[in-house]
Amino acid sequence: MKELENELYECKILVERALDKFLPDENLYPSEIFKAMRYSVFAGGKRLRPILVMKSAELFGLEKEKVLPTACGIEMIHTYSLIHDDLPCMDNDDFRRGKPTCHKMFGEAIALLAGDALLTHAFYVIAKNKDVEGIKENAVLDVIAKISKASGPLGMVSGQVVDILSEGVNIDEKTLYFMDVKKTAELIKVSLWAGARLAGADEKDLIKIETYGEKIGIMFQIIDDILDTNGDEKIIGKPVGSDIKNDKNTFVKMFGIEQSKLLANKLAKEAKEVLVEFKNKEFFMMLIDYLLNRSH
Amino acid sequence: MKELENELYECKILVERALDKFLPDENLYPSEIFKAMRYSVFAGGKRLRPILVMKSAELFGLEKEKVLPTACGIEMIHTYSLIHDDLPCMDNDDFRRGKPTCHKMFGEAIALLAGDALLTHAFYVIAKNKDVEGIKENAVLDVIAKISKASGPLGMVSGQVVDILSEGVNIDEKTLYFMDVKKTAELIKVSLWAGARLAGADEKDLIKIETYGEKIGIMFQIIDDILDTNGDEKIIGKPVGSDIKNDKNTFVKMFGIEQSKLLANKLAKEAKEVLVEFKNKEFFMMLIDYLLNRSH
Repeated sequence: MKELENELYECKILVERALDKFLPDENLYPSEIFKAMRYSVFAGGKRLRPILVMKSAELFGLEKEKVLPTACGIEMIHTYSLIHDDLPCMDNDDFRRGKPTCHKMFGEAIALLAGDALLTHAFYVIAKNKDVEGIKENAVLDVIAKISKASGPLGMVSGQVVDILSEGVNIDEKTLYFMDVKKTAELIKVSLWAGARLAGADEKDLIKIETYGEKIGIMFQIIDDILDTNGDEKIIGKPVGSDIKNDKNTFVKMFGIEQSKLLANKLAKEAKEVLVEFKNKEFFMMLIDYLLNRSH
Repeated sequence: MKELENELYECKILVERALDKFLPDENLYPSEIFKAMRYSVFAGGKRLRPILVMKSAELFGLEKEKVLPTACGIEMIHTYSLIHDDLPCMDNDDFRRGKPTCHKMFGEAIALLAGDALLTHAFYVIAKNKDVEGIKENAVLDVIAKISKASGPLGMVSGQVVDILSEGVNIDEKTLYFMDVKKTAELIKVSLWAGARLAGADEKDLIKIETYGEKIGIMFQIIDDILDTNGDEKIIGKPVGSDIKNDKNTFVKMFGIEQSKLLANKLAKEAKEVLVEFKNKEFFMMLIDYLLNRSH
Protein backbone atom coordinates (compact mmCIF):
# COMPACT_ATOMS: atom_id res chain seq x y z
CA MET A 1 0.00 0.00 0.00
CA LYS A 2 2.98 2.32 0.63
CA GLU A 3 3.97 1.91 -3.02
CA LEU A 4 0.49 2.96 -4.16
CA GLU A 5 0.46 5.94 -1.85
CA ASN A 6 3.80 7.12 -3.22
CA GLU A 7 2.53 6.81 -6.77
CA LEU A 8 -0.69 8.67 -5.94
CA TYR A 9 1.35 11.39 -4.26
CA GLU A 10 3.70 11.77 -7.22
CA CYS A 11 0.79 12.04 -9.66
CA LYS A 12 -1.01 14.49 -7.38
CA ILE A 13 2.00 16.83 -7.40
CA LEU A 14 2.13 16.69 -11.21
CA VAL A 15 -1.60 17.41 -11.46
CA GLU A 16 -1.50 20.34 -9.06
CA ARG A 17 1.48 21.89 -10.79
CA ALA A 18 -0.32 21.53 -14.14
CA LEU A 19 -3.59 22.92 -12.75
CA ASP A 20 -1.68 25.98 -11.60
CA LYS A 21 -0.26 26.37 -15.11
CA PHE A 22 -3.58 25.84 -16.92
CA LEU A 23 -5.71 28.14 -14.72
CA PRO A 24 -5.62 31.87 -15.51
CA ASP A 25 -3.55 34.05 -13.17
CA GLU A 26 -5.61 35.39 -10.28
CA ASN A 27 -4.25 38.90 -10.75
CA LEU A 28 -5.99 39.24 -14.10
CA TYR A 29 -9.02 41.51 -14.29
CA PRO A 30 -11.67 40.92 -12.92
CA SER A 31 -9.69 39.08 -10.24
CA GLU A 32 -12.74 37.87 -8.25
CA ILE A 33 -13.55 35.17 -10.80
CA PHE A 34 -10.00 33.86 -11.06
CA LYS A 35 -9.64 33.89 -7.27
CA ALA A 36 -12.89 31.93 -6.88
CA MET A 37 -11.88 29.37 -9.53
CA ARG A 38 -8.50 28.83 -7.88
CA TYR A 39 -9.97 28.80 -4.37
CA SER A 40 -12.18 25.82 -5.22
CA VAL A 41 -9.68 23.97 -7.39
CA PHE A 42 -7.00 24.24 -4.71
CA ALA A 43 -9.28 23.57 -1.72
CA GLY A 44 -7.89 20.03 -1.57
CA GLY A 45 -9.18 16.81 -3.00
CA LYS A 46 -7.67 13.48 -3.87
CA ARG A 47 -7.27 14.34 -7.60
CA LEU A 48 -8.59 10.83 -8.28
CA ARG A 49 -10.03 11.58 -11.72
CA PRO A 50 -6.94 13.24 -13.24
CA ILE A 51 -4.75 10.49 -11.74
CA LEU A 52 -6.97 7.91 -13.47
CA VAL A 53 -6.47 9.69 -16.80
CA MET A 54 -2.70 9.60 -16.34
CA LYS A 55 -2.40 6.05 -15.09
CA SER A 56 -4.75 4.76 -17.78
CA ALA A 57 -2.60 6.40 -20.46
CA GLU A 58 0.45 4.77 -18.89
CA LEU A 59 -1.27 1.37 -18.79
CA PHE A 60 -1.55 1.56 -22.57
CA GLY A 61 2.01 2.73 -23.13
CA LEU A 62 1.85 6.54 -23.17
CA GLU A 63 3.87 8.72 -20.77
CA LYS A 64 1.45 10.08 -18.19
CA GLU A 65 2.70 13.67 -18.55
CA LYS A 66 1.32 13.74 -22.11
CA VAL A 67 -2.30 13.65 -20.97
CA LEU A 68 -2.02 16.34 -18.29
CA PRO A 69 -4.24 18.84 -20.18
CA THR A 70 -7.09 16.32 -20.37
CA ALA A 71 -6.48 15.22 -16.77
CA CYS A 72 -6.66 18.82 -15.53
CA GLY A 73 -9.74 19.56 -17.68
CA ILE A 74 -11.60 16.68 -16.02
CA GLU A 75 -10.58 17.92 -12.56
CA MET A 76 -11.98 21.38 -13.48
CA ILE A 77 -15.27 19.74 -14.54
CA HIS A 78 -15.35 17.83 -11.24
CA THR A 79 -14.72 21.06 -9.29
CA TYR A 80 -17.43 22.98 -11.18
CA SER A 81 -19.92 20.22 -10.31
CA LEU A 82 -19.04 20.52 -6.60
CA ILE A 83 -19.39 24.34 -6.60
CA HIS A 84 -22.83 24.22 -8.23
CA ASP A 85 -23.90 21.26 -6.09
CA ASP A 86 -23.13 23.23 -2.92
CA LEU A 87 -25.21 26.30 -3.94
CA PRO A 88 -28.24 27.23 -1.81
CA CYS A 89 -30.72 26.15 -4.52
CA MET A 90 -29.03 22.71 -4.61
CA ASP A 91 -27.61 21.04 -1.45
CA ASN A 92 -26.98 24.34 0.36
CA ASP A 93 -23.73 23.18 1.95
CA ASP A 94 -21.50 25.57 3.91
CA PHE A 95 -18.39 23.39 4.09
CA ARG A 96 -16.46 21.25 1.65
CA ARG A 97 -13.12 19.62 2.35
CA GLY A 98 -12.94 21.45 5.68
CA LYS A 99 -13.25 24.91 4.13
CA PRO A 100 -16.15 27.27 3.48
CA THR A 101 -17.83 26.48 0.14
CA CYS A 102 -17.24 28.81 -2.83
CA HIS A 103 -20.50 30.75 -2.39
CA LYS A 104 -19.79 31.21 1.34
CA MET A 105 -16.47 32.84 0.42
CA PHE A 106 -17.40 34.79 -2.73
CA GLY A 107 -21.19 35.06 -2.75
CA GLU A 108 -23.69 33.15 -4.86
CA ALA A 109 -23.27 35.07 -8.12
CA ILE A 110 -19.49 34.69 -8.26
CA ALA A 111 -19.72 31.01 -7.21
CA LEU A 112 -22.24 30.34 -9.99
CA LEU A 113 -19.95 32.08 -12.49
CA ALA A 114 -16.83 30.35 -11.15
CA GLY A 115 -18.53 27.00 -11.83
CA ASP A 116 -19.50 28.12 -15.33
CA ALA A 117 -15.97 29.38 -15.90
CA LEU A 118 -14.32 26.12 -14.81
CA LEU A 119 -16.64 24.03 -16.98
CA THR A 120 -15.96 26.20 -20.03
CA HIS A 121 -12.22 26.54 -19.42
CA ALA A 122 -11.98 22.74 -19.06
CA PHE A 123 -12.78 22.32 -22.74
CA TYR A 124 -10.19 24.96 -23.65
CA VAL A 125 -7.52 23.05 -21.75
CA ILE A 126 -8.58 19.64 -23.10
CA ALA A 127 -8.58 20.93 -26.69
CA LYS A 128 -4.99 22.08 -26.13
CA ASN A 129 -3.91 18.48 -25.57
CA LYS A 130 -3.62 18.41 -29.38
CA ASP A 131 -0.42 20.44 -29.13
CA VAL A 132 1.37 17.69 -27.19
CA GLU A 133 3.74 15.68 -29.37
CA GLY A 134 2.45 12.25 -30.30
CA ILE A 135 -1.19 13.02 -29.53
CA LYS A 136 -3.56 12.52 -32.46
CA GLU A 137 -6.17 15.14 -33.37
CA ASN A 138 -8.96 12.59 -33.87
CA ALA A 139 -8.26 11.11 -30.41
CA VAL A 140 -8.61 14.56 -28.80
CA LEU A 141 -11.91 15.12 -30.63
CA ASP A 142 -13.22 11.74 -29.48
CA VAL A 143 -12.16 12.58 -25.93
CA ILE A 144 -13.98 15.95 -26.03
CA ALA A 145 -17.16 14.30 -27.36
CA LYS A 146 -17.01 11.53 -24.75
CA ILE A 147 -16.25 13.85 -21.81
CA SER A 148 -19.01 16.29 -22.74
CA LYS A 149 -21.46 13.41 -23.05
CA ALA A 150 -20.38 11.87 -19.72
CA SER A 151 -20.68 15.17 -17.86
CA GLY A 152 -23.70 16.64 -19.67
CA PRO A 153 -27.47 16.01 -19.67
CA LEU A 154 -27.02 12.38 -20.72
CA GLY A 155 -24.41 11.87 -18.01
CA MET A 156 -23.51 13.58 -14.74
CA VAL A 157 -26.15 16.30 -14.93
CA SER A 158 -28.95 13.72 -15.18
CA GLY A 159 -27.65 12.14 -11.97
CA GLN A 160 -27.77 15.51 -10.22
CA VAL A 161 -31.32 16.02 -11.47
CA VAL A 162 -32.50 12.69 -10.05
CA ASP A 163 -30.61 13.43 -6.80
CA ILE A 164 -32.40 16.77 -6.37
CA LEU A 165 -35.84 15.59 -7.48
CA SER A 166 -35.78 12.48 -5.31
CA GLU A 167 -34.96 14.28 -2.04
CA GLY A 168 -37.52 13.13 0.52
CA VAL A 169 -39.02 10.64 -1.94
CA ASN A 170 -38.63 6.88 -1.71
CA ILE A 171 -37.03 5.60 -4.91
CA ASP A 172 -36.46 2.05 -6.11
CA GLU A 173 -33.12 0.28 -6.46
CA LYS A 174 -32.96 0.84 -10.22
CA THR A 175 -33.34 4.59 -9.75
CA LEU A 176 -30.65 4.63 -7.04
CA TYR A 177 -28.22 2.89 -9.39
CA PHE A 178 -29.12 5.21 -12.27
CA MET A 179 -28.49 8.23 -10.05
CA ASP A 180 -25.12 7.03 -8.76
CA VAL A 181 -23.85 5.70 -12.07
CA LYS A 182 -24.62 9.08 -13.66
CA LYS A 183 -23.66 11.33 -10.77
CA THR A 184 -20.38 9.65 -9.85
CA ALA A 185 -19.36 6.73 -12.06
CA GLU A 186 -19.66 8.50 -15.43
CA LEU A 187 -16.81 10.94 -14.79
CA ILE A 188 -14.60 8.21 -13.30
CA LYS A 189 -15.31 5.97 -16.31
CA VAL A 190 -14.56 8.68 -18.84
CA SER A 191 -11.31 9.58 -17.04
CA LEU A 192 -10.05 6.04 -17.62
CA TRP A 193 -11.43 5.96 -21.17
CA ALA A 194 -9.81 9.28 -22.09
CA GLY A 195 -6.32 8.26 -20.96
CA ALA A 196 -6.64 4.98 -22.85
CA ARG A 197 -8.00 6.62 -26.01
CA LEU A 198 -5.20 9.19 -26.10
CA ALA A 199 -2.72 6.33 -25.71
CA GLY A 200 -4.27 4.57 -28.71
CA ALA A 201 -5.92 1.64 -26.88
CA ASP A 202 -8.12 -0.57 -29.06
CA GLU A 203 -11.91 -0.89 -28.82
CA LYS A 204 -11.80 -4.06 -26.70
CA ASP A 205 -9.51 -2.52 -24.11
CA LEU A 206 -11.53 0.72 -24.07
CA ILE A 207 -14.64 -1.24 -23.14
CA LYS A 208 -12.76 -3.15 -20.44
CA ILE A 209 -11.29 -0.08 -18.79
CA GLU A 210 -14.74 1.52 -18.81
CA THR A 211 -16.24 -1.53 -17.12
CA TYR A 212 -13.55 -1.30 -14.44
CA GLY A 213 -14.45 2.40 -14.09
CA GLU A 214 -18.14 1.64 -13.63
CA LYS A 215 -17.40 -0.89 -10.87
CA ILE A 216 -15.04 1.35 -8.89
CA GLY A 217 -17.27 4.37 -9.57
CA ILE A 218 -20.33 2.86 -7.89
CA MET A 219 -18.14 1.41 -5.17
CA PHE A 220 -16.70 4.89 -4.60
CA GLN A 221 -20.22 6.31 -4.16
CA ILE A 222 -21.25 3.56 -1.73
CA ILE A 223 -18.19 4.32 0.43
CA ASP A 224 -19.11 8.03 0.23
CA ASP A 225 -22.59 7.21 1.51
CA ILE A 226 -21.14 5.14 4.35
CA LEU A 227 -18.63 7.87 5.33
CA ASP A 228 -21.43 10.44 5.37
CA THR A 229 -23.07 8.28 8.06
CA ASN A 230 -20.18 7.10 10.19
CA GLY A 231 -17.09 8.96 8.96
CA ASP A 232 -14.88 11.28 10.99
CA GLU A 233 -15.98 14.89 10.45
CA LYS A 234 -12.41 16.14 10.86
CA ILE A 235 -11.12 13.76 8.21
CA ILE A 236 -13.87 14.07 5.58
CA GLY A 237 -14.00 17.87 5.99
CA LYS A 238 -17.76 18.34 6.10
CA PRO A 239 -20.47 17.63 8.67
CA VAL A 240 -21.39 13.98 8.95
CA GLY A 241 -25.07 13.29 8.31
CA SER A 242 -25.66 15.89 5.57
CA ASP A 243 -27.39 13.21 3.46
CA ILE A 244 -29.87 12.56 6.27
CA LYS A 245 -30.36 16.31 6.79
CA ASN A 246 -31.21 16.71 3.08
CA ASP A 247 -33.24 13.47 3.12
CA LYS A 248 -31.09 12.10 0.29
CA ASN A 249 -31.46 8.67 -1.24
CA THR A 250 -28.27 6.75 -0.51
CA PHE A 251 -27.10 3.15 -0.44
CA VAL A 252 -27.06 3.38 3.36
CA LYS A 253 -30.69 4.55 3.46
CA MET A 254 -31.79 1.78 1.11
CA PHE A 255 -29.68 -1.15 2.33
CA GLY A 256 -28.21 -0.19 5.71
CA ILE A 257 -24.47 0.05 6.45
CA GLU A 258 -23.64 -3.67 6.60
CA GLN A 259 -25.40 -4.53 3.35
CA SER A 260 -23.79 -1.50 1.68
CA LYS A 261 -20.35 -2.72 2.75
CA LEU A 262 -21.08 -6.13 1.23
CA LEU A 263 -22.16 -4.47 -2.01
CA ALA A 264 -18.95 -2.42 -2.11
CA ASN A 265 -16.91 -5.57 -1.56
CA LYS A 266 -18.75 -7.33 -4.35
CA LEU A 267 -17.99 -4.48 -6.75
CA ALA A 268 -14.33 -4.51 -5.68
CA LYS A 269 -14.13 -8.21 -6.53
CA GLU A 270 -15.79 -7.65 -9.92
CA ALA A 271 -13.42 -4.77 -10.68
CA LYS A 272 -10.44 -7.02 -10.01
CA GLU A 273 -11.84 -9.66 -12.36
CA VAL A 274 -12.07 -7.11 -15.17
CA LEU A 275 -8.32 -6.52 -14.86
CA VAL A 276 -7.32 -10.17 -15.20
CA GLU A 277 -5.99 -10.00 -18.74
CA PHE A 278 -4.16 -6.67 -18.42
CA LYS A 279 -0.40 -6.51 -17.93
CA ASN A 280 1.13 -3.94 -15.54
CA LYS A 281 -2.16 -3.76 -13.69
CA GLU A 282 -0.67 -3.52 -10.15
CA PHE A 283 -1.63 0.13 -9.67
CA PHE A 284 -5.24 -0.48 -10.67
CA MET A 285 -5.47 -3.61 -8.51
CA MET A 286 -4.15 -1.83 -5.42
CA LEU A 287 -6.33 1.20 -6.10
CA ILE A 288 -9.48 -0.89 -5.63
CA ASP A 289 -8.64 -1.81 -2.04
CA TYR A 290 -7.38 1.68 -1.34
CA LEU A 291 -10.71 3.21 -2.41
CA LEU A 292 -12.67 0.48 -0.64
CA ASN A 293 -10.94 1.09 2.69
CA ARG A 294 -10.59 4.87 2.51
CA SER A 295 -11.57 7.03 5.48
CA HIS A 296 -12.18 10.24 3.46
CA MET B 1 -34.14 44.78 -46.60
CA LYS B 2 -36.80 42.27 -47.74
CA GLU B 3 -34.02 40.15 -49.26
CA LEU B 4 -32.08 40.15 -45.97
CA GLU B 5 -35.17 39.23 -43.98
CA ASN B 6 -35.85 36.28 -46.28
CA GLU B 7 -32.30 35.06 -45.87
CA LEU B 8 -32.44 35.44 -42.07
CA TYR B 9 -35.74 33.56 -42.03
CA GLU B 10 -34.40 30.72 -44.16
CA CYS B 11 -31.32 30.33 -41.93
CA LYS B 12 -33.45 30.51 -38.79
CA ILE B 13 -35.58 27.58 -39.98
CA LEU B 14 -32.44 25.53 -40.69
CA VAL B 15 -31.02 26.36 -37.24
CA GLU B 16 -34.23 25.49 -35.40
CA ARG B 17 -34.61 22.20 -37.22
CA ALA B 18 -30.99 21.34 -36.38
CA LEU B 19 -31.39 22.40 -32.73
CA ASP B 20 -34.32 20.03 -32.47
CA LYS B 21 -32.15 17.26 -33.90
CA PHE B 22 -29.12 17.98 -31.69
CA LEU B 23 -31.00 18.35 -28.39
CA PRO B 24 -31.89 15.14 -26.52
CA ASP B 25 -35.53 14.02 -26.72
CA GLU B 26 -37.62 15.44 -23.90
CA ASN B 27 -39.18 12.06 -23.17
CA LEU B 28 -35.86 10.68 -21.98
CA TYR B 29 -35.39 10.12 -18.26
CA PRO B 30 -35.23 12.36 -16.22
CA SER B 31 -37.48 14.39 -18.50
CA GLU B 32 -37.42 17.59 -16.38
CA ILE B 33 -33.91 18.49 -17.54
CA PHE B 34 -34.61 17.90 -21.22
CA LYS B 35 -37.88 19.83 -20.99
CA ALA B 36 -36.11 22.76 -19.33
CA MET B 37 -33.31 22.79 -21.93
CA ARG B 38 -35.80 22.74 -24.78
CA TYR B 39 -38.09 25.28 -23.14
CA SER B 40 -35.33 27.86 -23.06
CA VAL B 41 -33.78 27.04 -26.42
CA PHE B 42 -37.18 27.23 -28.14
CA ALA B 43 -38.46 30.27 -26.23
CA GLY B 44 -37.76 32.40 -29.29
CA GLY B 45 -34.77 34.49 -30.22
CA LYS B 46 -33.29 35.82 -33.41
CA ARG B 47 -30.72 33.00 -33.75
CA LEU B 48 -28.23 35.73 -34.67
CA ARG B 49 -25.10 33.86 -33.53
CA PRO B 50 -25.76 30.58 -35.38
CA ILE B 51 -26.76 32.53 -38.47
CA LEU B 52 -23.43 34.37 -38.31
CA VAL B 53 -21.58 31.03 -38.18
CA MET B 54 -23.44 29.84 -41.28
CA LYS B 55 -23.16 33.01 -43.33
CA SER B 56 -19.49 33.42 -42.44
CA ALA B 57 -18.79 29.88 -43.66
CA GLU B 58 -20.67 30.72 -46.86
CA LEU B 59 -18.70 33.96 -47.30
CA PHE B 60 -15.54 31.84 -47.47
CA GLY B 61 -16.95 29.26 -49.83
CA LEU B 62 -18.41 26.51 -47.62
CA GLU B 63 -22.08 25.43 -47.77
CA LYS B 64 -23.77 26.81 -44.69
CA GLU B 65 -25.40 23.48 -43.78
CA LYS B 66 -21.95 22.02 -43.08
CA VAL B 67 -21.39 24.17 -40.00
CA LEU B 68 -24.79 23.56 -38.38
CA PRO B 69 -23.35 21.57 -35.43
CA THR B 70 -21.05 24.46 -34.49
CA ALA B 71 -23.82 26.99 -35.13
CA CYS B 72 -26.21 25.11 -32.82
CA GLY B 73 -23.53 24.63 -30.18
CA ILE B 74 -22.99 28.39 -30.00
CA GLU B 75 -26.74 28.97 -29.69
CA MET B 76 -26.80 26.51 -26.76
CA ILE B 77 -23.97 28.44 -25.09
CA HIS B 78 -25.89 31.68 -25.64
CA THR B 79 -29.04 30.14 -24.13
CA TYR B 80 -27.17 28.78 -21.09
CA SER B 81 -25.79 32.28 -20.44
CA LEU B 82 -29.33 33.74 -20.50
CA ILE B 83 -30.71 31.08 -18.11
CA HIS B 84 -27.94 31.65 -15.56
CA ASP B 85 -28.10 35.43 -16.03
CA ASP B 86 -31.81 35.41 -15.15
CA LEU B 87 -31.36 33.45 -11.89
CA PRO B 88 -32.28 35.14 -8.59
CA CYS B 89 -28.62 35.44 -7.51
CA MET B 90 -27.84 37.22 -10.79
CA ASP B 91 -30.33 39.61 -12.47
CA ASN B 92 -33.41 37.94 -10.93
CA ASP B 93 -35.56 38.37 -14.05
CA ASP B 94 -39.02 36.81 -14.32
CA PHE B 95 -39.54 37.26 -18.05
CA ARG B 96 -37.44 36.71 -21.14
CA ARG B 97 -38.72 36.95 -24.72
CA GLY B 98 -42.28 37.37 -23.43
CA LYS B 99 -42.24 34.12 -21.46
CA PRO B 100 -41.48 33.17 -17.84
CA THR B 101 -37.76 32.59 -17.35
CA CYS B 102 -36.48 29.02 -16.93
CA HIS B 103 -36.32 29.13 -13.12
CA LYS B 104 -39.85 30.57 -12.97
CA MET B 105 -41.07 27.55 -14.93
CA PHE B 106 -38.88 24.76 -13.51
CA GLY B 107 -37.47 26.06 -10.23
CA GLU B 108 -33.96 27.30 -9.50
CA ALA B 109 -32.20 23.93 -9.21
CA ILE B 110 -33.43 22.62 -12.56
CA ALA B 111 -32.74 25.98 -14.25
CA LEU B 112 -29.17 25.96 -12.92
CA LEU B 113 -28.71 22.39 -14.18
CA ALA B 114 -30.37 23.14 -17.53
CA GLY B 115 -27.80 25.91 -18.05
CA ASP B 116 -24.97 23.56 -17.09
CA ALA B 117 -26.42 20.90 -19.40
CA LEU B 118 -26.67 23.24 -22.39
CA LEU B 119 -23.12 24.50 -21.92
CA THR B 120 -21.74 20.96 -21.69
CA HIS B 121 -23.88 19.56 -24.51
CA ALA B 122 -22.75 22.43 -26.74
CA PHE B 123 -19.22 21.04 -26.82
CA TYR B 124 -20.56 17.58 -27.62
CA VAL B 125 -22.43 18.94 -30.62
CA ILE B 126 -19.53 21.13 -31.79
CA ALA B 127 -17.08 18.20 -31.57
CA LYS B 128 -19.45 16.22 -33.80
CA ASN B 129 -18.90 18.73 -36.61
CA LYS B 130 -15.84 16.58 -37.39
CA ASP B 131 -18.16 13.95 -38.89
CA VAL B 132 -19.36 16.33 -41.62
CA GLU B 133 -17.72 15.65 -44.97
CA GLY B 134 -15.05 18.16 -45.93
CA ILE B 135 -14.53 19.47 -42.39
CA LYS B 136 -10.97 19.19 -41.10
CA GLU B 137 -10.23 17.81 -37.63
CA ASN B 138 -7.69 20.52 -36.80
CA ALA B 139 -10.22 23.21 -37.72
CA VAL B 140 -12.80 21.72 -35.32
CA LEU B 141 -10.20 21.62 -32.54
CA ASP B 142 -9.26 25.26 -33.18
CA VAL B 143 -12.95 26.16 -33.10
CA ILE B 144 -13.48 24.38 -29.76
CA ALA B 145 -10.46 26.12 -28.22
CA LYS B 146 -11.56 29.52 -29.53
CA ILE B 147 -15.22 29.15 -28.49
CA SER B 148 -14.33 27.96 -24.99
CA LYS B 149 -11.94 30.88 -24.60
CA ALA B 150 -14.50 33.38 -25.90
CA SER B 151 -17.24 32.12 -23.58
CA GLY B 152 -15.13 31.26 -20.52
CA PRO B 153 -13.39 33.24 -17.76
CA LEU B 154 -11.23 35.13 -20.25
CA GLY B 155 -14.31 35.96 -22.34
CA MET B 156 -18.06 36.15 -21.73
CA VAL B 157 -17.94 35.10 -18.06
CA SER B 158 -15.58 37.98 -17.21
CA GLY B 159 -18.11 40.38 -18.74
CA GLN B 160 -20.85 38.92 -16.54
CA VAL B 161 -18.61 39.29 -13.50
CA VAL B 162 -17.98 42.98 -14.17
CA ASP B 163 -21.69 43.47 -14.90
CA ILE B 164 -22.68 41.97 -11.52
CA LEU B 165 -19.91 43.60 -9.48
CA SER B 166 -20.49 47.04 -10.96
CA GLU B 167 -24.22 47.20 -10.22
CA GLY B 168 -24.84 50.46 -8.41
CA VAL B 169 -21.22 51.54 -8.86
CA ASN B 170 -20.05 54.27 -11.21
CA ILE B 171 -17.56 52.80 -13.67
CA ASP B 172 -15.37 54.52 -16.26
CA GLU B 173 -15.72 54.31 -20.03
CA LYS B 174 -12.90 51.77 -20.34
CA THR B 175 -14.63 49.41 -17.91
CA LEU B 176 -17.96 49.79 -19.74
CA TYR B 177 -16.30 48.82 -23.01
CA PHE B 178 -14.49 45.88 -21.38
CA MET B 179 -17.78 44.65 -19.95
CA ASP B 180 -19.72 44.87 -23.21
CA VAL B 181 -16.95 43.51 -25.42
CA LYS B 182 -16.68 40.48 -23.14
CA LYS B 183 -20.36 40.03 -22.31
CA THR B 184 -21.75 40.46 -25.81
CA ALA B 185 -19.17 40.98 -28.54
CA GLU B 186 -16.97 37.94 -27.79
CA LEU B 187 -19.62 35.37 -28.70
CA ILE B 188 -20.63 37.30 -31.82
CA LYS B 189 -16.97 37.58 -32.88
CA VAL B 190 -16.27 33.90 -32.35
CA SER B 191 -19.40 32.92 -34.28
CA LEU B 192 -18.02 34.69 -37.34
CA TRP B 193 -14.51 33.35 -36.73
CA ALA B 194 -15.73 29.76 -36.35
CA GLY B 195 -17.64 29.72 -39.64
CA ALA B 196 -14.65 31.23 -41.43
CA ARG B 197 -12.15 28.84 -39.83
CA LEU B 198 -14.24 25.77 -40.73
CA ALA B 199 -14.39 27.10 -44.30
CA GLY B 200 -10.61 27.36 -44.39
CA ALA B 201 -10.28 31.17 -44.40
CA ASP B 202 -6.71 32.48 -44.08
CA GLU B 203 -5.26 34.36 -41.10
CA LYS B 204 -5.78 37.81 -42.67
CA ASP B 205 -9.46 37.17 -43.36
CA LEU B 206 -9.98 35.64 -39.91
CA ILE B 207 -8.71 38.83 -38.30
CA LYS B 208 -10.92 40.96 -40.54
CA ILE B 209 -14.11 39.03 -39.85
CA GLU B 210 -13.35 39.23 -36.12
CA THR B 211 -12.93 42.98 -36.33
CA TYR B 212 -16.29 43.21 -38.08
CA GLY B 213 -17.72 41.06 -35.25
CA GLU B 214 -16.32 43.34 -32.57
CA LYS B 215 -17.87 46.42 -34.21
CA ILE B 216 -21.35 44.93 -34.66
CA GLY B 217 -21.11 43.24 -31.26
CA ILE B 218 -20.66 46.49 -29.33
CA MET B 219 -23.20 48.17 -31.59
CA PHE B 220 -25.64 45.36 -30.76
CA GLN B 221 -25.17 45.96 -27.03
CA ILE B 222 -25.65 49.73 -27.38
CA ILE B 223 -28.96 49.13 -29.19
CA ASP B 224 -29.93 46.68 -26.42
CA ASP B 225 -29.26 49.38 -23.83
CA ILE B 226 -31.35 51.89 -25.80
CA LEU B 227 -34.25 49.42 -26.23
CA ASP B 228 -34.22 48.69 -22.52
CA THR B 229 -34.89 52.40 -21.99
CA ASN B 230 -37.33 53.27 -24.74
CA GLY B 231 -38.31 50.00 -26.42
CA ASP B 232 -41.81 48.55 -26.70
CA GLU B 233 -42.35 46.03 -23.90
CA LYS B 234 -44.63 43.94 -26.10
CA ILE B 235 -41.99 43.70 -28.82
CA ILE B 236 -38.86 43.12 -26.71
CA GLY B 237 -40.65 40.60 -24.47
CA LYS B 238 -39.43 41.84 -21.08
CA PRO B 239 -40.18 44.85 -18.91
CA VAL B 240 -38.58 48.06 -20.13
CA GLY B 241 -36.31 49.68 -17.54
CA SER B 242 -34.87 46.51 -15.99
CA ASP B 243 -31.35 48.00 -16.32
CA ILE B 244 -32.42 51.02 -14.27
CA LYS B 245 -34.15 48.75 -11.73
CA ASN B 246 -30.92 46.76 -11.30
CA ASP B 247 -28.84 49.96 -11.41
CA LYS B 248 -26.83 48.53 -14.31
CA ASN B 249 -24.04 50.34 -16.08
CA THR B 250 -25.14 50.89 -19.66
CA PHE B 251 -24.22 53.08 -22.60
CA VAL B 252 -27.45 55.00 -22.00
CA LYS B 253 -26.56 55.64 -18.36
CA MET B 254 -23.07 56.82 -19.30
CA PHE B 255 -23.74 58.80 -22.48
CA GLY B 256 -27.51 59.37 -22.72
CA ILE B 257 -29.71 58.12 -25.59
CA GLU B 258 -28.67 60.59 -28.28
CA GLN B 259 -24.94 60.13 -27.74
CA SER B 260 -25.41 56.34 -27.61
CA LYS B 261 -27.17 56.45 -30.99
CA LEU B 262 -24.28 58.42 -32.46
CA LEU B 263 -21.83 55.84 -31.09
CA ALA B 264 -23.85 53.00 -32.62
CA ASN B 265 -23.86 54.79 -35.97
CA LYS B 266 -20.11 55.29 -35.79
CA LEU B 267 -19.59 51.57 -35.15
CA ALA B 268 -21.93 50.72 -38.05
CA LYS B 269 -19.80 52.88 -40.34
CA GLU B 270 -16.59 51.26 -39.14
CA ALA B 271 -18.05 47.77 -39.59
CA LYS B 272 -18.90 48.62 -43.20
CA GLU B 273 -15.35 49.81 -43.82
CA VAL B 274 -13.96 46.48 -42.60
CA LEU B 275 -15.95 44.71 -45.31
CA VAL B 276 -14.60 46.81 -48.19
CA GLU B 277 -12.28 44.19 -49.67
CA PHE B 278 -14.62 41.21 -49.31
CA LYS B 279 -16.58 39.86 -52.26
CA ASN B 280 -20.19 38.67 -51.80
CA LYS B 281 -20.50 40.88 -48.74
CA GLU B 282 -24.09 42.04 -49.35
CA PHE B 283 -25.58 40.03 -46.49
CA PHE B 284 -23.05 41.37 -43.99
CA MET B 285 -23.50 44.95 -45.24
CA MET B 286 -27.28 44.81 -44.94
CA LEU B 287 -27.06 43.09 -41.57
CA ILE B 288 -25.34 46.12 -40.04
CA ASP B 289 -28.27 48.45 -40.78
CA TYR B 290 -30.75 45.77 -39.81
CA LEU B 291 -29.16 45.39 -36.36
CA LEU B 292 -28.74 49.16 -36.01
CA ASN B 293 -32.42 49.84 -36.66
CA ARG B 294 -33.93 46.84 -34.89
CA SER B 295 -36.86 47.29 -32.50
CA HIS B 296 -36.23 44.06 -30.51
